[in-house]
Amino acid sequence: MRRRAPAVEGRGIGLAQTLSTLIERFHEIDDLERAAGVLDWDQKTYMPMGGLSGRGEQLATLGVVIHERLASPELGELLDRLAEEVSEAPPDDLRRPFLRTARRAHDQAVKLTPSLVAKQARVSVQAYERWMAARKAKDFRIFAPAFTSVLDVSREMAEALGYPQEPYDALLDHAEQGMTAASAAQLLDELKATLVPLIARIVESPHQVDRSILFGHFPEEAQWRLMTEAVEAFGYDFGRGRLDRTIHPFETSFGIGDVRITTCVVESYFPAGLFGTMHESGHGMYEQGLSAEWGRTPLGKPVSGGIHESQSRFWENFVGRSRAFWHYFLPRAQAAFPSLADATAEDVYRAVSAVQPSFIRVEADEVTYNLHIAVRFEVERALLRGELAVQDVPDAWNAKMQAYLGIAPPDDLLGALQDVHWTHDLGGFLTYTVGNVAGGQLWQAANRSIEDLSQRVGRGDFAPLLDFLRRNVHQVGSRETRDDMLRHVTGEPLTTRPYLEYIQAKFQDIYELS
Amino acid sequence: MRRRAPAVEGRGIGLAQTLSTLIERFHEIDDLERAAGVLDWDQKTYMPMGGLSGRGEQLATLGVVIHERLASPELGELLDRLAEEVSEAPPDDLRRPFLRTARRAHDQAVKLTPSLVAKQARVSVQAYERWMAARKAKDFRIFAPAFTSVLDVSREMAEALGYPQEPYDALLDHAEQGMTAASAAQLLDELKATLVPLIARIVESPHQVDRSILFGHFPEEAQWRLMTEAVEAFGYDFGRGRLDRTIHPFETSFGIGDVRITTCVVESYFPAGLFGTMHESGHGMYEQGLSAEWGRTPLGKPVSGGIHESQSRFWENFVGRSRAFWHYFLPRAQAAFPSLADATAEDVYRAVSAVQPSFIRVEADEVTYNLHIAVRFEVERALLRGELAVQDVPDAWNAKMQAYLGIAPPDDLLGALQDVHWTHDLGGFLTYTVGNVAGGQLWQAANRSIEDLSQRVGRGDFAPLLDFLRRNVHQVGSRETRDDMLRHVTGEPLTTRPYLEYIQAKFQDIYELS
Repeated sequence: MRRRAPAVEGRGIGLAQTLSTLIERFHEIDDLERAAGVLDWDQKTYMPMGGLSGRGEQLATLGVVIHERLASPELGELLDRLAEEVSEAPPDDLRRPFLRTARRAHDQAVKLTPSLVAKQARVSVQAYERWMAARKAKDFRIFAPAFTSVLDVSREMAEALGYPQEPYDALLDHAEQGMTAASAAQLLDELKATLVPLIARIVESPHQVDRSILFGHFPEEAQWRLMTEAVEAFGYDFGRGRLDRTIHPFETSFGIGDVRITTCVVESYFPAGLFGTMHESGHGMYEQGLSAEWGRTPLGKPVSGGIHESQSRFWENFVGRSRAFWHYFLPRAQAAFPSLADATAEDVYRAVSAVQPSFIRVEADEVTYNLHIAVRFEVERALLRGELAVQDVPDAWNAKMQAYLGIAPPDDLLGALQDVHWTHDLGGFLTYTVGNVAGGQLWQAANRSIEDLSQRVGRGDFAPLLDFLRRNVHQVGSRETRDDMLRHVTGEPLTTRPYLEYIQAKFQDIYELS
Repeated sequence: MRRRAPAVEGRGIGLAQTLSTLIERFHEIDDLERAAGVLDWDQKTYMPMGGLSGRGEQLATLGVVIHERLASPELGELLDRLAEEVSEAPPDDLRRPFLRTARRAHDQAVKLTPSLVAKQARVSVQAYERWMAARKAKDFRIFAPAFTSVLDVSREMAEALGYPQEPYDALLDHAEQGMTAASAAQLLDELKATLVPLIARIVESPHQVDRSILFGHFPEEAQWRLMTEAVEAFGYDFGRGRLDRTIHPFETSFGIGDVRITTCVVESYFPAGLFGTMHESGHGMYEQGLSAEWGRTPLGKPVSGGIHESQSRFWENFVGRSRAFWHYFLPRAQAAFPSLADATAEDVYRAVSAVQPSFIRVEADEVTYNLHIAVRFEVERALLRGELAVQDVPDAWNAKMQAYLGIAPPDDLLGALQDVHWTHDLGGFLTYTVGNVAGGQLWQAANRSIEDLSQRVGRGDFAPLLDFLRRNVHQVGSRETRDDMLRHVTGEPLTTRPYLEYIQAKFQDIYELS
């Protein structure tokens, strides 16, 4: 059953032995992480209510066992030995990136003590409960004490992990390797400089978009068939995956042969389910396309949370919200939803792309989305710097919404209580913006590399696009760093220009801004 | 999150410490076993085809981790220390049964080396593949080489576990603690002595039962509602469980708060699904009724495979195939299945109880069932004694079917290839007969203990019956041995008399045997 470790040719038995032992250890760790993933998927899809506390124990124990193995001194010694061996190897020796990725996984585990890992799990469970209660009452104050604990644990984690300048650096680097508060601020500032004025112009444009065709009654079964058809056409492989219904859509992988996605269904508004499914299929195709050879090792994993997000946004936005896609997809949507009978592809393209400042991040359009991230980033940074008190979060949040989007949430449910992330940790939101930006780079590169891309999309021929991502992103896995991979595919490390060019071209056209 | 270990009053800190450390260790082992259970459930219900090989790896790794912890020398030392402490404790000290059950779990793990555990898993996966291929061709010879490997591993396991007289003893004891080949033979001989002549008389009776009402078209959805209604009435708690569809029905528990059952649905024959669900609900109610206090420790587990089986047969046969039950349930069945409109409760009671020698064990009636077990027991014993060669299994099987049931299977699919068990190990079939026999004892005791039991069942009032099992079987868990528990509830250890009395009374009545 067990896959044999790939042979490292031309080296002595003793040398190959270190790598193959390490691969075995990481295979086991990966198996346990996947097992935890199955338990988590089950909890969110089919687990009966009564299973909650038992499931908490099972996941906590698996977490301890995984941490124990990842942080084990034996693993550290094996890595030291590999480092010695690799020091004399040629630059393209695969053991180099293996060592880099494996070392990071081990080092981060060593820094986080078992008691801190357990504490975070405990605090997170309590915070989730309080968050739910606070949402019910639409009152952030109910969540504030629990959020203070989350913040305390985050500070402890930052101290344990270490950082160059400020504690937030550690959390950002944990979520997206190499990111610091300063580099994140710069990224967001670049985006804001273009997007904030663009939004103002869009809002004032006389050429507003009619979104009414998106609303009506869209029966669940018809939606289900249409969503399945869309992502199957993209290339999501149902023989190695499945689609289930959950309140919040997500993707989870138990290895390249079993990558599942979930979606929500809103019968009065079809884009929620359709674009949710496209989004998760992008995550799913990334996981289905990872290298089989390096499966179950750190080299065969997605390179970063931001690049993972770039894949979901690629299919949801760059493809799914394109004019060409709706030329292909409209007849299919009309077959499912009779109320679209009189709509043109152009109508649907504009409606699903419409820009409208709104309160909820996950429902935000392509232009306003990153400003939601800016709000969270600045609030988190101020909290960690001690410049903002927990009880003042809603006011700070609302002021920033007003400043960037011109609207302020009427209650905390539409404001600082909307995301589940703060029941667990801080720093994760930035990956969404990295995903948008990297997605723009990849989209531009794909258009350069694939002849007649938009005609192909217009015919429903997505194979060259998936193949492009397979070869340049998926199969690479973690063999290259995020920026090396981006450099190889697009010629540049992470950079905002292509994304902003895409946004400006698309929305100047739709809103007829001169 | 973690439940605190129950205090052991009046003892020094050092003493209670041993127990509480042991409890912690077993909590973790239990969590990992449950996690493996979730992966297994998922594999059989919702996993996509592509997940098979990854799932094999995950389950193999979990198996290794569980075995490692269960066999760990530290656990052995803790058990030795507990043994010392307990030697001076009063006879009813709960640490005594804890030590007994924990010791057995540890000792069995220590005897089975990791390489043997891994070998069994590997052989089993291959054997399952060959078994499927052999079933397709209806040819045992295709399965024979793989089955030879299963037999070899079983012999190795028997040698590792040790046995008093013959290797089969070790496998039987592994499946049902305390059982030997000699005691199993005696149990089956007692049953055969009554059942073989009884079947002959039933077959020759002029008063045959009309089963035609069981066949027709019973739409899946209607069956689903009816099955759910039946087991909900019994007391299976859907807030702590769920019912899914699989090819072979099964029950699995992830702790008392999450106990799931599955069933099959045959649209042309409703008893397959209905009695399958009742059967699994019996297993499920046992697991839902285990002690919360001793959950996640060996004390809080079902006492034996045989007693587990007694619970499923209790609800499937003693209740579900009773005259009283159909007085209660017929109107419900008629609402679901219009073709039953003209049937009386007596008609259905007789039809679902009808005796008819048949080839497939899982479809066998209450009277012939144990003879199917006798066939398997005698074949397995002869194989392990070296008195029967693998290639001669079909002939031996068919000859025994002819001798006990008067019929011989026309092909291997209806004969020696029917059970999945032989792709994994030998010895497990006996628990079914223990279940029937213990079920008979418990049924007799329940009738003595609960006033007007059959009138209550006839009204759909199952609460006193479930309460009786909760108090006397479920809550006891493994605090008493199987025979001690049976003695406390029924006055006797495992004994065939009550079961045979039940069978004789029921079927002499139905077939009007004088």
